Amino acid sequence: MACCSCLCCRCCCREGETRTPEELTILGETRDEDDEILPRKDYESLDYDCCINEPYVEVLEGMDNKKAKKYEAVKWLLVFAIGISTGLVGLLVDFFVRLFSQLKFSLVGKSVEECDDNVCLAVSLLQLLAFNMTFVFIASVLVLIEPVAAGSGIPEIKSYLNGVKIPGIVRLRTFVCKVIGVLFAVAGGLFVGKEGPMIHSGAIVGAGLPQFQSITFKKIRFHFPYFRSDRDKRDFVSAGAAAGVAAAFGAPIGGTLFSLEEGSSFWNQALTWKVLFCSMSATFTLNFFRSGINYNKWGSFQLPGLLNFGEFKCTDGDKNCHLWTAVDLAFFVLMGIAGGLLGALFNCINKRLAKCRMRNIHPKAKGIRVLESLFVSMVTTVVIFVASMTLGKCRDLSTPTSNTTLSLMSASDEVNSTIRQFFCENKTYNDMATLFFNPQEAAIYQLFHQDASFSPVTLSIFFVLYFFLACWTYGVSVPSGLFVPSLLCGASMGRLVANVLKINIGMDIYSGTFALIGAAAFLGGVVRMTISLTVILIESTNEITYGLPIMITLMVAKWTGDLFNKGIYDIHIMLKGVPLLEWETEVEMDKLTASDIMEPNLTYVYPHTRIQSLVSILRTTVYHAFPVVTENRDNEREFMKGNILISNNIRFKKTSVLTRAGEQRRRCQSMKSYPSSELRNVCDEQVGVVPAEEGQDLLQQMLERRHTPYPNLYPDQSPSEDWTMEERFRPLTFHGLILRSHLVTLLIRGVCYSENQSSASQPRLSYAEMTEDYPRYPDIHDLDLALLNPRMIVDVTPYMNPCPYTVSPNTRVSQVFNLFRTMGLRHLPVVNAVGEIVGIITRHNLTHEFLVSKLRQHYITI
Amino acid sequence: MACCSCLCCRCCCREGETRTPEELTILGETRDEDDEILPRKDYESLDYDCCINEPYVEVLEGMDNKKAKKYEAVKWLLVFAIGISTGLVGLLVDFFVRLFSQLKFSLVGKSVEECDDNVCLAVSLLQLLAFNMTFVFIASVLVLIEPVAAGSGIPEIKSYLNGVKIPGIVRLRTFVCKVIGVLFAVAGGLFVGKEGPMIHSGAIVGAGLPQFQSITFKKIRFHFPYFRSDRDKRDFVSAGAAAGVAAAFGAPIGGTLFSLEEGSSFWNQALTWKVLFCSMSATFTLNFFRSGINYNKWGSFQLPGLLNFGEFKCTDGDKNCHLWTAVDLAFFVLMGIAGGLLGALFNCINKRLAKCRMRNIHPKAKGIRVLESLFVSMVTTVVIFVASMTLGKCRDLSTPTSNTTLSLMSASDEVNSTIRQFFCENKTYNDMATLFFNPQEAAIYQLFHQDASFSPVTLSIFFVLYFFLACWTYGVSVPSGLFVPSLLCGASMGRLVANVLKINIGMDIYSGTFALIGAAAFLGGVVRMTISLTVILIESTNEITYGLPIMITLMVAKWTGDLFNKGIYDIHIMLKGVPLLEWETEVEMDKLTASDIMEPNLTYVYPHTRIQSLVSILRTTVYHAFPVVTENRDNEREFMKGNILISNNIRFKKTSVLTRAGEQRRRCQSMKSYPSSELRNVCDEQVGVVPAEEGQDLLQQMLERRHTPYPNLYPDQSPSEDWTMEERFRPLTFHGLILRSHLVTLLIRGVCYSENQSSASQPRLSYAEMTEDYPRYPDIHDLDLALLNPRMIVDVTPYMNPCPYTVSPNTRVSQVFNLFRTMGLRHLPVVNAVGEIVGIITRHNLTHEFLVSKLRQHYITI
Repeated sequence: MACCSCLCCRCCCREGETRTPEELTILGETRDEDDEILPRKDYESLDYDCCINEPYVEVLEGMDNKKAKKYEAVKWLLVFAIGISTGLVGLLVDFFVRLFSQLKFSLVGKSVEECDDNVCLAVSLLQLLAFNMTFVFIASVLVLIEPVAAGSGIPEIKSYLNGVKIPGIVRLRTFVCKVIGVLFAVAGGLFVGKEGPMIHSGAIVGAGLPQFQSITFKKIRFHFPYFRSDRDKRDFVSAGAAAGVAAAFGAPIGGTLFSLEEGSSFWNQALTWKVLFCSMSATFTLNFFRSGINYNKWGSFQLPGLLNFGEFKCTDGDKNCHLWTAVDLAFFVLMGIAGGLLGALFNCINKRLAKCRMRNIHPKAKGIRVLESLFVSMVTTVVIFVASMTLGKCRDLSTPTSNTTLSLMSASDEVNSTIRQFFCENKTYNDMATLFFNPQEAAIYQLFHQDASFSPVTLSIFFVLYFFLACWTYGVSVPSGLFVPSLLCGASMGRLVANVLKINIGMDIYSGTFALIGAAAFLGGVVRMTISLTVILIESTNEITYGLPIMITLMVAKWTGDLFNKGIYDIHIMLKGVPLLEWETEVEMDKLTASDIMEPNLTYVYPHTRIQSLVSILRTTVYHAFPVVTENRDNEREFMKGNILISNNIRFKKTSVLTRAGEQRRRCQSMKSYPSSELRNVCDEQVGVVPAEEGQDLLQQMLERRHTPYPNLYPDQSPSEDWTMEERFRPLTFHGLILRSHLVTLLIRGVCYSENQSSASQPRLSYAEMTEDYPRYPDIHDLDLALLNPRMIVDVTPYMNPCPYTVSPNTRVSQVFNLFRTMGLRHLPVVNAVGEIVGIITRHNLTHEFLVSKLRQHYITI
Repeated sequence: MACCSCLCCRCCCREGETRTPEELTILGETRDEDDEILPRKDYESLDYDCCINEPYVEVLEGMDNKKAKKYEAVKWLLVFAIGISTGLVGLLVDFFVRLFSQLKFSLVGKSVEECDDNVCLAVSLLQLLAFNMTFVFIASVLVLIEPVAAGSGIPEIKSYLNGVKIPGIVRLRTFVCKVIGVLFAVAGGLFVGKEGPMIHSGAIVGAGLPQFQSITFKKIRFHFPYFRSDRDKRDFVSAGAAAGVAAAFGAPIGGTLFSLEEGSSFWNQALTWKVLFCSMSATFTLNFFRSGINYNKWGSFQLPGLLNFGEFKCTDGDKNCHLWTAVDLAFFVLMGIAGGLLGALFNCINKRLAKCRMRNIHPKAKGIRVLESLFVSMVTTVVIFVASMTLGKCRDLSTPTSNTTLSLMSASDEVNSTIRQFFCENKTYNDMATLFFNPQEAAIYQLFHQDASFSPVTLSIFFVLYFFLACWTYGVSVPSGLFVPSLLCGASMGRLVANVLKINIGMDIYSGTFALIGAAAFLGGVVRMTISLTVILIESTNEITYGLPIMITLMVAKWTGDLFNKGIYDIHIMLKGVPLLEWETEVEMDKLTASDIMEPNLTYVYPHTRIQSLVSILRTTVYHAFPVVTENRDNEREFMKGNILISNNIRFKKTSVLTRAGEQRRRCQSMKSYPSSELRNVCDEQVGVVPAEEGQDLLQQMLERRHTPYPNLYPDQSPSEDWTMEERFRPLTFHGLILRSHLVTLLIRGVCYSENQSSASQPRLSYAEMTEDYPRYPDIHDLDLALLNPRMIVDVTPYMNPCPYTVSPNTRVSQVFNLFRTMGLRHLPVVNAVGEIVGIITRHNLTHEFLVSKLRQHYITI
């Protein structure tokens, strides 16, 4: 129940109090290892790699450059639409959050200001509690409807972009729950941000928009069957996620880099350019409407992202003011270390909490989750209220300096509009209430730009309370981002450092910069993102000169944090058991080769197979792809007479092998029809020597020179127990891969021929028919067996992928990994030097955990 | 001679005057096609792909995570050093250019101001001529010493990052000539920029620094043989080039994206992060020293890049001022179109000029090139001087508005410090002289920030003169960048548009924005870069809100320009005949398969080969890699008795084939030593059935079941004329690839064994010995044959790459292309379904020109 999670939290906290963060995290890591969660086998890869089979070739043949350009133009339009839609979603969320928060804070704030006894304050507290708990209840119920909508969504999007199919994360229902849920969660005063959910929403828009137009409104359906594939969908999701970042932070370049960093191992210029365009569209759509609505300046662009850091600048008159100097860099490095340590502590506590929740809350009734959310909301509200009322100090507002111009006044007006004066005299303000009793964005803005100082005690208390509450909140079943809470937490730390340096030591520094660097350090320590986070923060501040300090801080924070544990998103991905592929393998892994890690037990199909075999293979295995193979047998000529099925398979094998001699002959023949007489001469002599007929015979002989000492097996036969190992693992020539979904489609559409017909009589499916059921292909168990004749034969060769990338068994793991990750593969056959398949590698064979276990085995057997 | 190029230029100009740009460029493109320059065969690819052979595996075996981390730390240090050095190079160039220019302009400027008759002016002109021509002479002579130092260097770096080895471009001599040359070229008043050469210089620093430490100063040699490979070198070059951009424009993120856009098709997070760090280091080194030297503010950071656009901002009091509004976007699109058209015209003229030069100047004595440079310098100087003196208008300086603060005054002071007053009264200035009689950066600054207006006539004349002179200058044999001239040209166009809109139509616009957009449009039309240029310009302006207009303008300019011709860098790459690989292939190319484009005529080696064969193969071919193959023959058992060489080859073939049965046996055996009893049970039964001895026999049988009907051929035999085609193209099982450089190294170091010894007695080379001669491996013709016994046998198998990536013959071109480009391959063997090599694909088989010719052939033969 909720109190359990609270208990668990408390137990973590107690540890945190008695030990240093290092000790804690080290202990946490080592003790955790016993119940480490291994990647789950049921997550599958996306089909990012092109499968060029005959239906697709037909599409290709009809493709010319004009059509390709049209197709490209539609992509641009779609990307533009995704950008605009994401911007509008951001606008919607922002508008309602603002509306609800203002309503809440103005009502409660007014009732507090008018109070002077404790009873009256208690009534105000109850008001606030009623607001917050209602909002959080709505958010939590929405997550019950679609559990995938919980959390920030960044782990899910990261997994998706990494190439893992996670059910439900890009569905419309998730979108609705996420958007409305985050709106109420933020308005409900929980310590959550709306940035992570914005990224997720953007990704769903990206995935849905190009599909949506072709499903719901049949009339405006595009005649492009190309978007109905995982490849296109993932590209659009990249664009959508980038647009989400762009809308959230006003950082189009940062958004693009985010997509690239998380997703595209393959840097595709055309895609990148589209992603940037999409991000820009999102930022400027949001900017256009927000500037119009908030300032009534339609057509100008002044409010780029949902999260706005404001402008960092020295007062114009002050010649000696610098945003930062070389000396400050040393402090930034120290703050980076502190941020890394605190981030690691945060992640450690959150990880244990999450495990606690998985064990104690998730297995129980769903209502328990709602109760937990409500409990968190209650505690948060009480803490906010009590701290604001009792712990704040009254601080002087800085008087405007004499040479400040009118416009600057307006800027500081903007800062001062969100201060809280609770029980303080005029010209002073309540610093704790200003931080707690405001939307989080306003609090960050205060920490960055308020010239007047916050008391160190207030900042410390705020930091500690916020740290633990935010840590507890992330993982509760509401849509919840982590950026804003981390920034606010870090900013209070940075402001604390600035206070110490400025007042106690008397250095001439710019407090806002320290708050910013503190925010960056803590955020970096928690999420451990690198280049994209740097760029996002630079863009949010609109100040390129912050590049170096932000980057150094993030670098130090990441390196420090990485000593103890992973980033929070990676932790949650791991807890979900997603088989994520890292950036690269460790150097040590190169001691392993492809044959060490491949799956050697294969379930395969023949080019021509009876329906009964196919159905039994599909029903008894869970593999998502099957190698199409032929056996190497001696007495093929004999077989060809006996059984149409086997002779078909053998004939296929013969025709599918391209030899040098055959290739040379083909070239010579085609050159005869080629104008250049010079080229023709090269071949004439050779062609004369070998007539085509004889060549055919030779080819046949060449192909028949294999003979195996094994018993004769028909594809219909099932393996028997008393086979020797060589019988079980007989050599199989590899011809291609066919996906389970394609096989099921072939069966359902009745693509087969009977034994007394030629295989050419088999009906043909077009590309559109093949992909019609995308993305939810029918299951083999949906198949009505009564409609099928089990003795019919299916020729799978037109529908298989005839030339997937393959590797040799001795290839080192790093090469296998690079190929797999970069090309976005799903299945990678391992083929030996004579073309026989010896194993298959999937994502699960390349996860860090699997490689480590294989390496351990490798060391033992040496 | 020089006048020829001038003539040629004039003929182009005349065309340009009578025809619209479209007609001209279309005609230019179609007429050019006859003498199109095809990619030259002598450019080779870099070895970016890992070649994991036995010496490297030895290194790997000795590698643990600790060593890997140390190695990583050294990389970071090196990258940091590269950044700092590049920053210092930028500082040096900037300092001397500034020194020389100030000297020149102040001397000549003063003498002009004091003049009032024409004789005196003529003396001033002569002074200026003397300065400029001396400077240009020095620059030109330096280029004579190292011809690769001519031009901007971006085409060369782009080619290098694309994976093409271009001799001499990353040598120290090139560096010295480039840096000193560009300094004098810019100081000499030519219409060239120093940004392109900065990028080239940065790249050389990147390539040189990590190598330098290990060659020149033997004492501080790192014990990391890893940096001695093309792979590491290219990574460092990426970092260096990015640092160059960062130093030139103060754009670290833009620099990183430049490197990625041009080079790394493979997005490697670790590398990207290092590249960004390197760029940041460069920017901030430069910034630190320039702020210190120029403003005497050590420790502050105020002058980010060599090229500084200044701060775009509205005067603080003006509430209605916007940098841009939604309405302006329409004009930006139109300006983008204009920029694209003008850029296409520029490229067309420059291409013809370059061809003209290649035909008429390059074949002649080198002195001619110096004369051409001097001639260009003379014409430029005269034009500058005469235009400044006679064509300028006197314009009023804007009076500071009343509510401008002190600090704004200082900003406008800065703008006004570079105006030229030649012959104008006080409070007015000579607009033409202000543009022409200043360093180009100052002129750009004027166009962006001068509140007072330039006369439309002046702007038009300036644009036309500058356009043609800049076009003529790019390609003259001095180091010369193109960014600044293009920006200046475009800015004058943009300012002209702003003038028309503001004064003639009376719109309320910000002139500086239009100048900036004009600059972006023209630059985009000329260079056609996409995402990196967007980011560079955004960073240079330090104003994120310019993101959308800059991006839209660049996009429109690129699309418009691409209708007519390619970007200037691509044109120069094409003129050099570099086999550049594009981003992706056109969709139509997918009608071709790997077997259509591969090179089917193979020169191959056997695993064990006699020295005499190797030497003759190496001496009679120019290939850089040879497949290691074994023949498929029937009577292998017979052969094994006869000839040690052949039996060695056959034995190698047998041991190198990993079968499923063998693999399964190995696993079972290793599992017996493995603790888990559960796993052991799975295998026990099978292992019991097949004893290892029998298994070995079976393996042998399996491998011997090939029999060929061809004549018996010894590796020593040479092909005879009366062979049939099948004899010439007999099936070859592929085992690996060996590089020419490795073969030569093996021969030179005497790695071989005699016929009566076992191949195990062959001496072993370590990885360090293999790579000792990098990057200049000895030639086969340097080999002293007298020292070699031609009957000795070389076992190449430990030194070959045993598992390069391969493709099947039916793989579509797009898949082949992606694999080749993304993995940075050099040779890609095409292997059929039974493991026989049928061809090989190199960079030359994937160039656009080659694919187009193959596609044409494909259409003919259908």
